[in-house]
Amino acid sequence: RRYCTRMAAGDGPLLRQLFEVESSTYTYLLADRATKEAVLIDPVLETVDRDLKLIRELGLNLTVAVNTHCHADHITGTGLMKKRLVGLKSAICKFSGASADVLLSEGDKIAFGKHYLTVRETPGHTDGCMTLVLEDQSMAFTGDTLLIRGCGRTDFQQGSPEMLYKSVHQKIFTLPDQCLVYPAHDYLGQTVSTVGEERQFNPRLTKSLEEFVNIMNNLNLRKPAKIEIAVPANLVCGLHEV
Amino acid sequence: RRYCTRMAAGDGPLLRQLFEVESSTYTYLLADRATKEAVLIDPVLETVDRDLKLIRELGLNLTVAVNTHCHADHITGTGLMKKRLVGLKSAICKFSGASADVLLSEGDKIAFGKHYLTVRETPGHTDGCMTLVLEDQSMAFTGDTLLIRGCGRTDFQQGSPEMLYKSVHQKIFTLPDQCLVYPAHDYLGQTVSTVGEERQFNPRLTKSLEEFVNIMNNLNLRKPAKIEIAVPANLVCGLHEV
Ligand SMILES: [Fe+2]
Ligand SMILES: [Fe+2]
Repeated sequence: RRYCTRMAAGDGPLLRQLFEVESSTYTYLLADRATKEAVLIDPVLETVDRDLKLIRELGLNLTVAVNTHCHADHITGTGLMKKRLVGLKSAICKFSGASADVLLSEGDKIAFGKHYLTVRETPGHTDGCMTLVLEDQSMAFTGDTLLIRGCGRTDFQQGSPEMLYKSVHQKIFTLPDQCLVYPAHDYLGQTVSTVGEERQFNPRLTKSLEEFVNIMNNLNLRKPAKIEIAVPANLVCGLHEV
Repeated sequence: RRYCTRMAAGDGPLLRQLFEVESSTYTYLLADRATKEAVLIDPVLETVDRDLKLIRELGLNLTVAVNTHCHADHITGTGLMKKRLVGLKSAICKFSGASADVLLSEGDKIAFGKHYLTVRETPGHTDGCMTLVLEDQSMAFTGDTLLIRGCGRTDFQQGSPEMLYKSVHQKIFTLPDQCLVYPAHDYLGQTVSTVGEERQFNPRLTKSLEEFVNIMNNLNLRKPAKIEIAVPANLVCGLHEV
């Protein structure tokens, strides 16, 4: 049994969760332990140097930097990373309206060594939101679609509570109970959840569609501080800011 | 191979890393997936409600709340948790000078279901610092002894750079390369490291003892904002503050 655990630890991808404190954003670094091919999910402009240092120390070959959607609360680090790492490709959902080297849609795979992430389109927070699911469905990177005991807002950037509800129920809650949920943000110091937990305890998504829409339409949130800068920048990979 | 990974995921303990933003402290919740027995490492007063809610939702039976040392930068949540959870025992190293239900020393085990943490005394940041190592040496909770690419300061609370250096080299760097390092703090958004990485890249602990002592004696850090409140409070489980 112990042998098996150790084998598995060496067999699954390397995963590093990294936090950017100003926007409360999680960046995820995933890599094949053998080939060293790596993927970075949702890098933030302010932490590009930290992330590149880690990638260098771990001896990884970062091939793809992917954004789960066109963020409104921070500027992506993708553009700056591309300037620093020759051959790095940016990727985003083709419905995001943003430019990138690779435009992804439902069922597309992002490969890194023997591992891959599969794209599930999960619009609702924005039109171009994706959830990225590891090949064995042991983890899902849900962007702003599903947060820990929460979800992304739906009051700007083509947001639609009906669409978000449908995305979560059809594309995320259908994953196995034990599938780990890694969101793009958390504001309470939580780092991870599971599909089973969110299906049971998410205070919004456990409601009926009608109640959910009502909740989302009455949040009365302030606009993100950086939205006027972040969205135009993120539509061009963050490049015009750097 | 995939079957094995899944088995292992269900076989290892449940682990939740939780962050308290004001003091940049990580709290760790560990549990046996079958028996639901749980241990909490370094709870923070301000996040007791969050942690108790999660424990309740996951259906866990928290039996021990352990502090890796007598903290100077935040008040422990242990005392308040004991008031809220009947039967919960507090634990700390017997050399910490603090009171608790269980006083731990080298080689002691903290059991939760079929799992256990083994105490390794790692003084240096304080006299009563411990590192807690999971039974299969797949992870170590290093408190302030070893941080990610750093280490705890040694300029108060019986701090000794010589002792810290020895503790890290004899008690932590002797763990397997792939052993995950979970520190009590991180100030750069990093969540985890490995023994192998720190042995190779820690900018302080890779130096000679002489150089290390020199670095540590010239940090010129300000005193933690809360030290006058936190240390006396933590000597009595945080109880006099609640
Ligand atoms: Fe967003
Ligand atoms: Fe400390």
